[in-house]
Amino acid sequence: MKKNKQTLLVALGGNALIRKGQKGTVDEQFENLKVPIGQIARLSGKYKIIITHGNGPQVGNLLLQQESCDEVPKLPLEILVAQTQGQIGYMIESTLDAELMKLGDDTGHYFVSLLSYVVVDKNDPAFLNPSKPVGPAFSKAKAAGRPYPTKKTAKGYRRVVASPAPVTIVEKREIKKLIDMNFIVICCGGGGIPVIREGRSFSGVDAVIDKDLASARLALEVGVDIFLIATDVKGVALNYGTKNQEFLRSITPQQAVRYTKDGHFPPGSMGPKVEAAMQFFQISGKRAVIASIEDIERAVAGKAGTQIED
Amino acid sequence: MKKNKQTLLVALGGNALIRKGQKGTVDEQFENLKVPIGQIARLSGKYKIIITHGNGPQVGNLLLQQESCDEVPKLPLEILVAQTQGQIGYMIESTLDAELMKLGDDTGHYFVSLLSYVVVDKNDPAFLNPSKPVGPAFSKAKAAGRPYPTKKTAKGYRRVVASPAPVTIVEKREIKKLIDMNFIVICCGGGGIPVIREGRSFSGVDAVIDKDLASARLALEVGVDIFLIATDVKGVALNYGTKNQEFLRSITPQQAVRYTKDGHFPPGSMGPKVEAAMQFFQISGKRAVIASIEDIERAVAGKAGTQIED
Repeated sequence: MKKNKQTLLVALGGNALIRKGQKGTVDEQFENLKVPIGQIARLSGKYKIIITHGNGPQVGNLLLQQESCDEVPKLPLEILVAQTQGQIGYMIESTLDAELMKLGDDTGHYFVSLLSYVVVDKNDPAFLNPSKPVGPAFSKAKAAGRPYPTKKTAKGYRRVVASPAPVTIVEKREIKKLIDMNFIVICCGGGGIPVIREGRSFSGVDAVIDKDLASARLALEVGVDIFLIATDVKGVALNYGTKNQEFLRSITPQQAVRYTKDGHFPPGSMGPKVEAAMQFFQISGKRAVIASIEDIERAVAGKAGTQIED
Repeated sequence: MKKNKQTLLVALGGNALIRKGQKGTVDEQFENLKVPIGQIARLSGKYKIIITHGNGPQVGNLLLQQESCDEVPKLPLEILVAQTQGQIGYMIESTLDAELMKLGDDTGHYFVSLLSYVVVDKNDPAFLNPSKPVGPAFSKAKAAGRPYPTKKTAKGYRRVVASPAPVTIVEKREIKKLIDMNFIVICCGGGGIPVIREGRSFSGVDAVIDKDLASARLALEVGVDIFLIATDVKGVALNYGTKNQEFLRSITPQQAVRYTKDGHFPPGSMGPKVEAAMQFFQISGKRAVIASIEDIERAVAGKAGTQIED
């Protein structure tokens, strides 16, 4: 009997769509997507596939457009996240479609991009201290007039929102069922549309969920075999950005704790990636890898990236 | 043996989300959605369900925001349609979730909102004569400077785009498979993301597809049993809006042709609904109904709306 395929979840970082120095036109985004999606298309012959993705610049653009136009009712952040799931999901799905066709695959795969919302805890301490900058930068004077909290950042004053921990993916049963049926599933865009449970229903909240932590949650909830975080560097490094920079081929949970404490993995960048990979590895005992978007296939083969190991 | 459930496709008109005279805040849209979605939740006990929806005001708002902001790269129309599929799909899905919970259904249903793109023919004559107004209205002078065709409308000069006929729904196999497995499926928002086939892949085009025609196409392609177009009037009328207005409880294809010729069903409103219902009925021989959003359950029971009959 043929062995069941393993399931691979690839969490695509923002550079899968917009590279450093680009403005992020649609043409650029489609072109950039070919790099990760071409590799994922090839891997789909061997693995069941889930693709998740970030949405930082896209949601920032929607916020900026919203701020520039008083004629249209303002939408809350969770609706903007939903819009980016539509936008990016479509771009990924149609690129995947094209890349599979290039491989001569014109019958086999079923695939869907589905909207996903993710439950957060309304008592999450993150809500007491909104700290994640989103959207455009303002002058100090203009920031003072905004109807939401702002904070000084390197770019100027920006809106800050809470970034609570993902508790559960609402569509996990659906995603599991689709994967069991060999669908390629694109989901959990931008970390998911953030919702809180109110009685027996859900309602959206102004927050953003880290996409790597949400992806780790999803990977655990649907029983993924390999969790790959694809980003803009070739893996986890010590002393990143200094002359002593040292990329690691592997890292243990114990080392991760120590290096994090020593400040090697900053909160806004490698920090949540290492945390997400560790959560997945420690609970499931299965493979987690952090690698460059260019190296997805090699990382799955164990030949690139940083593998989490005991 | 229990008989297989019939499949019901409900195409929701724009008033499912935004009522006449409203600005279309998110609270209004969620509140309005309870009317159709509450009924659909109850019907889901008896029928397999597909929900499609319009996106006119929502895509108009995104265009208006885009026009107001020069700092962000402009997105082509098909990406804006994708964004509205995210936005509205999420709103419908979470409302459905809440309405099913009210019915005490907290185990049974699987449901997904999936992004859908719809193939149009690049030689469709509609591309020679863009006629569907979208987005904000401009003065004549401002319209002249726009990088796209505009046309004088009742509201002022507006951008016009082609509205080609839907050829096929790209995700039809996926949607069919999901329906067979008893998923409730939300799809084909705004008539679908318009794409043309180029060689072996697809690429988006600046166009909008009529959502009722796209829904009829989908209904035929997945083999729906009842096709219900839910709108803001109680059915098909002769002399609509005059003192001789007369709502029809049923209409035959022959009558439809005659009444259309006599100008009873204007192109921008009842015309495409009658055309979509007729296409479905004539090809499948199955039930098509046009009814008010308030009367979805009664229309399915044959007690309201206009039924298409031979």
